[in-house]
Amino acid sequence: MTGWNKLGIIAGGGALPLQIVEACRQKKTPFHLIRLAGFADDALKELPGADIALGEFGALLRELKENACDAAVMAGIVKRPDFATLKLDWGAAMRLPKLLAAAARGDGAVLNLLVAELEADGVAVIGAEEAVEGLAAPAGPLGARSPSQDDFADIRKAASVIAALGPYDVGQAAVVARGLVLAIEAAEGTDAMLERCATLPEAVRGGVLVKCPKPGQDRRVDLPVIGSDTIRRAQAAGLSGVAVESGRALVMDRAEAIRLADAAGLFVYGYKKDEIDET
Amino acid sequence: MTGWNKLGIIAGGGALPLQIVEACRQKKTPFHLIRLAGFADDALKELPGADIALGEFGALLRELKENACDAAVMAGIVKRPDFATLKLDWGAAMRLPKLLAAAARGDGAVLNLLVAELEADGVAVIGAEEAVEGLAAPAGPLGARSPSQDDFADIRKAASVIAALGPYDVGQAAVVARGLVLAIEAAEGTDAMLERCATLPEAVRGGVLVKCPKPGQDRRVDLPVIGSDTIRRAQAAGLSGVAVESGRALVMDRAEAIRLADAAGLFVYGYKKDEIDET
Repeated sequence: MTGWNKLGIIAGGGALPLQIVEACRQKKTPFHLIRLAGFADDALKELPGADIALGEFGALLRELKENACDAAVMAGIVKRPDFATLKLDWGAAMRLPKLLAAAARGDGAVLNLLVAELEADGVAVIGAEEAVEGLAAPAGPLGARSPSQDDFADIRKAASVIAALGPYDVGQAAVVARGLVLAIEAAEGTDAMLERCATLPEAVRGGVLVKCPKPGQDRRVDLPVIGSDTIRRAQAAGLSGVAVESGRALVMDRAEAIRLADAAGLFVYGYKKDEIDET
Repeated sequence: MTGWNKLGIIAGGGALPLQIVEACRQKKTPFHLIRLAGFADDALKELPGADIALGEFGALLRELKENACDAAVMAGIVKRPDFATLKLDWGAAMRLPKLLAAAARGDGAVLNLLVAELEADGVAVIGAEEAVEGLAAPAGPLGARSPSQDDFADIRKAASVIAALGPYDVGQAAVVARGLVLAIEAAEGTDAMLERCATLPEAVRGGVLVKCPKPGQDRRVDLPVIGSDTIRRAQAAGLSGVAVESGRALVMDRAEAIRLADAAGLFVYGYKKDEIDET
């Protein structure tokens, strides 16, 4: 317990929200679910909480308050809605000008705004990796293999590309092979990006996948995620490995991810920022 | 005729090399073809020239010299070869260290090196738009429609993204919709990028395609190209239009491209650099 008493879990899609529920149970942390309608997994249905639509920011705040949540975590996948047709409640409507301005800057800006609004209302926002021990990527190799010197050069370049795109609130991932930028993630997501890397001509295929937060992105929301599925797709794309910034990425189903990576001869590596900074 | 007498046409794939041949015939400019094996169109087969493989830079120089070409134009599509298995002749092998260093920086660096090597050997390199009148994109709207103010904001952002990627020698194209960067081109090419834009969720789909040269790229090689096929794919992706930097992009089959764009309600626009520079 770190200064707060009850955790609101704002649950998008995927397995992460349930993992947070399980961590809360183990640590006997009280929690209350906000299931985002159309995104939250059915496995969360019977748990204490409420179903709230994306445009109901007022209802979300009320639900957290009425259930004495003084902290919240945003977890899971949420696809950008069509802001033009989104049904807004009063709490969202009064924030509409800010919301539209943020939406025009990018998804990261929207998430940063939501954090600011929650905190302005007295709800401490924490990252998923604070709620679940062992979720953040550690430093160094996670499995049996480590990147080669050439891989490190590619990791450095991919991280630089993501950093250069910071002002434009684009993606969190890039693939670089022997110095050549093969793919940059934007709205399509990492899975689709890896799939197209698998279809590139053999002469250029390969390289490393790097996922790291955009500069200026709030650490507590939307940290890059990798998992066993990432490793599967990286293998299919002929990559030599996957690198993330240690402490600034989440590793889902870690044991399985590492088992797959080891079997395929891929590295999974958590780099420290000073390890890849250009000298 | 501008200071040179005979033009070597180094022909990759697609229709552009033949367009240059036809322009030479119209202007009665002597020319000699270098058909890049595996890339050049069959329509060029019977024309005066030679078939040369990608690794035969020595043979290419010799062919230009022996046929008294004092100028050359590189035109058409060439896919990056696998430098590890490429068969090099002596002229290429002696340039191998430079070539590998350039290859590690990106495709633009390789092309810039080829230009430098040709010119060091006394062959003036010209751009395709110097060889074919009316090929370069003019300033202003090419068809009936013009970009809206919102479109201009998206054009500006897309051009900034491409500029920010300059140091990494990535792609020449990006799609931005209502401020959100939907896609950035890397090794997959513009066609594949537009195809994936067509598969994005409807809530985010739309926007503008911008193609412009990477900063630092030699104007005479690999200028971005648009054509009727670009318009077809832009329409399928639900875009509102296509913008290029005037004078720094090639418009193929222009009449058909404009006809399609007008029919679909898309703009095709050649912006001037100062029109989109952020103020």
